[in-house]
Amino acid sequence: MPNHSDQIILVNGLILADPDSCLVVPHGKTVIKGNMLSEVNSQLEAPPFSSEVIDCSNCLIMPGLVNAHTHAAMSLLRGLADDLPLDKWLNDCIFPSEAKHVGPEFVFLGTSLSAVEMALGGITTFADGYFFMEKAADAAAEVGLRAVIAQGILDVPSPDCPDPAKWNKRIEEFFARFPESPLTRPALFCHSPYLCGPETFRIAKKLAADHGTLLFAHISETRCEVEEIASRFGKTPLEHVHDLGILDRNFVNVHCVHLSDHEKDILADSGAGVVHCPESNMKLASGACPTRDLLKRGTSVAIGTDGPASNNNLDIFEEMRSAALMAKLVTSDPEALDARSVLRMATIQGAQVLGLDHSIGSLKAGKLADLIVIDLDRPHLTPVFDPVSHLVYCARGSDVRDVIVNGRIVVRDGSIITIDYSELASQVRSFAAKIAADLGIRTELK
Amino acid sequence: MPNHSDQIILVNGLILADPDSCLVVPHGKTVIKGNMLSEVNSQLEAPPFSSEVIDCSNCLIMPGLVNAHTHAAMSLLRGLADDLPLDKWLNDCIFPSEAKHVGPEFVFLGTSLSAVEMALGGITTFADGYFFMEKAADAAAEVGLRAVIAQGILDVPSPDCPDPAKWNKRIEEFFARFPESPLTRPALFCHSPYLCGPETFRIAKKLAADHGTLLFAHISETRCEVEEIASRFGKTPLEHVHDLGILDRNFVNVHCVHLSDHEKDILADSGAGVVHCPESNMKLASGACPTRDLLKRGTSVAIGTDGPASNNNLDIFEEMRSAALMAKLVTSDPEALDARSVLRMATIQGAQVLGLDHSIGSLKAGKLADLIVIDLDRPHLTPVFDPVSHLVYCARGSDVRDVIVNGRIVVRDGSIITIDYSELASQVRSFAAKIAADLGIRTELK
Repeated sequence: MPNHSDQIILVNGLILADPDSCLVVPHGKTVIKGNMLSEVNSQLEAPPFSSEVIDCSNCLIMPGLVNAHTHAAMSLLRGLADDLPLDKWLNDCIFPSEAKHVGPEFVFLGTSLSAVEMALGGITTFADGYFFMEKAADAAAEVGLRAVIAQGILDVPSPDCPDPAKWNKRIEEFFARFPESPLTRPALFCHSPYLCGPETFRIAKKLAADHGTLLFAHISETRCEVEEIASRFGKTPLEHVHDLGILDRNFVNVHCVHLSDHEKDILADSGAGVVHCPESNMKLASGACPTRDLLKRGTSVAIGTDGPASNNNLDIFEEMRSAALMAKLVTSDPEALDARSVLRMATIQGAQVLGLDHSIGSLKAGKLADLIVIDLDRPHLTPVFDPVSHLVYCARGSDVRDVIVNGRIVVRDGSIITIDYSELASQVRSFAAKIAADLGIRTELK
Repeated sequence: MPNHSDQIILVNGLILADPDSCLVVPHGKTVIKGNMLSEVNSQLEAPPFSSEVIDCSNCLIMPGLVNAHTHAAMSLLRGLADDLPLDKWLNDCIFPSEAKHVGPEFVFLGTSLSAVEMALGGITTFADGYFFMEKAADAAAEVGLRAVIAQGILDVPSPDCPDPAKWNKRIEEFFARFPESPLTRPALFCHSPYLCGPETFRIAKKLAADHGTLLFAHISETRCEVEEIASRFGKTPLEHVHDLGILDRNFVNVHCVHLSDHEKDILADSGAGVVHCPESNMKLASGACPTRDLLKRGTSVAIGTDGPASNNNLDIFEEMRSAALMAKLVTSDPEALDARSVLRMATIQGAQVLGLDHSIGSLKAGKLADLIVIDLDRPHLTPVFDPVSHLVYCARGSDVRDVIVNGRIVVRDGSIITIDYSELASQVRSFAAKIAADLGIRTELK
């Protein structure tokens, strides 16, 4: 691991250490030893001499952002098909392209590309769900991001499990081969109640529990899904997983767009987390997760970008803004989901939903050193009356200057320093050219 | 004017010259002579020797973006008050701060700051509405943006017209003093039917017509406004201006959130343009302009950021994305407002609404040289299957590499080159410190 000094010291600027209070105060000195925060905003008496010193003048230091749901490898399909409903998008465009092209190389390249994009945009932890996930774990570790790497499970043939009857064999293999790294941990992802039967959910939950990992599923994303589950099981998707006995703190509900008040109560009682994906839900016209109602009941709601084929970028600043704006629009209440609530969702609540809040999500001595430095000296962030308002309503991924994950500098002065990006980009373009040729699309750049 | 060579030649890359077709093709050579396009995408035979040559390899050349509605100077109040309804936001926060601080210096500084932000984000033309607008014209010309500069009119005291009975004297003065520049043209802005009576609208329209300029107004922004106009005049805001006889091609309707089908027909028949401000309408929970219905009827719909105090940035890429996403959400139709429709709104339709489509909005020999160069070699824009999808669903203001307005290079390699930004930023911060002190807000950055 290059650039992993024994000690890094950040000085000057402003700091937002605790998203729960959202207090922004002048910053003295923050010290990183190994992969941990050893001092947070202690007094800066004399200029530090030894170690790597990062001057944060005119910048804001804050916890790294959490992208709690994506399908990172799908960056290789980005922009292939837009302005379509979810079922058409999946069945006519995405599934056929995936069937033809998704393999270990696709997953490694696509996840590497997305990890670079996420790192540059201040995301220090992401939760991923896709196929050939050992390769996604390799990519995350190589770029240097923390990641929950969830292997996809379906009752229909998938790229790395053509015979769905053998899915649990694939899962055994996944756990056995999962590459060791302090940054990544394995998890499972049952696609949805419409593509995974009750028995699949039950077994997957047992396997997840046996390995002490999370189980994710897309739940109540579209009206069409809600209708299908009602006709098959006589209940809603959330009631369905609840009745299966698998809805608990280690179960992550992605989307939760269509929920009755009763379901919101079930969710709150279960302690299960929710991931809200505002831009994807808007783009596919799925609807709006009732974030305000869920937060009011005490459910932890994280923010996710969803995959880059349905977004189409991976910018959590943009998602924070969209989460706030969308909540105000659908409730007709401009006070719904204020900037501070949204910032918590993208940091500490993201960590809670992923079961990582003991170690990340806020800046505190003893926690892991996952932090970002935002350059406030930009025209669209000037002047600064309220830095939290700026983070949600003005900032964008490109305002992130430095990113540190697990004590390692991943981004410095807006550039990724852990891998050779231009080499990666040229590999990505070669791979994309094959996909494009297959579809008869011209992609020349010159 | 520094950096205004007699001839600029752009070579290589891709070009989207005509938003009506949205065709993206490989680019040979585009030649700018003086302030005009003399060749667009002609064959590049030999490397050009003389003149300024801009290599656009790995970039996309396209018409500059049009921000058809803002209150640029309000960047000095950015983030002062968020998560509030329009009436509370205006009456409790914005109007009192304006009454105390808005003067010629405020307008010059705030508009300069916003013009820099807009230029960096690829906006080459903006339509502004505020007070002391001679100063806004100075700022736009100095930064080097094309602008329609509309002087605000209200029936209540305003910063540059404390006695509203004398507003037409102020307008005479505005026209008389309007600074000469090839970049700016004057216009008038009646705030709204609830803050300007029928007589004010009629006289303003006559003055605008006499001077051959546009008249803008905020129309049907909130339900509250619709109810107030109904109770005062027994009709909707749009019917009201229509019945006043002032709704024509030179009248610009800003917002148009709440419209009946009958009003959509009136609008289409009138030829008047609409400016859609998606993020501001969401942030203030005003609702959603029925863009799809208006476009279907043949109305030109432009995109605006609205002022930076209710957005809170000035990024038309973001607004394009929000316009598309919001339309899909409120219609429950993922095919609503596709990427190509949105791109037209932000370019050629913006030009149409501002009456400038004969000279800007597309790239064609004989039109004015207002164009931007987007760097496609960024992780979040990789790979490229469909550049138009990328512009709407992935790109952000910071992907703009170069900006040319009226044949003058305003932004080069992502930096503003027409003014000294750091000097401007320090003046802005001093001014903001006064506003903050007045409100008891701490703003220190160190």
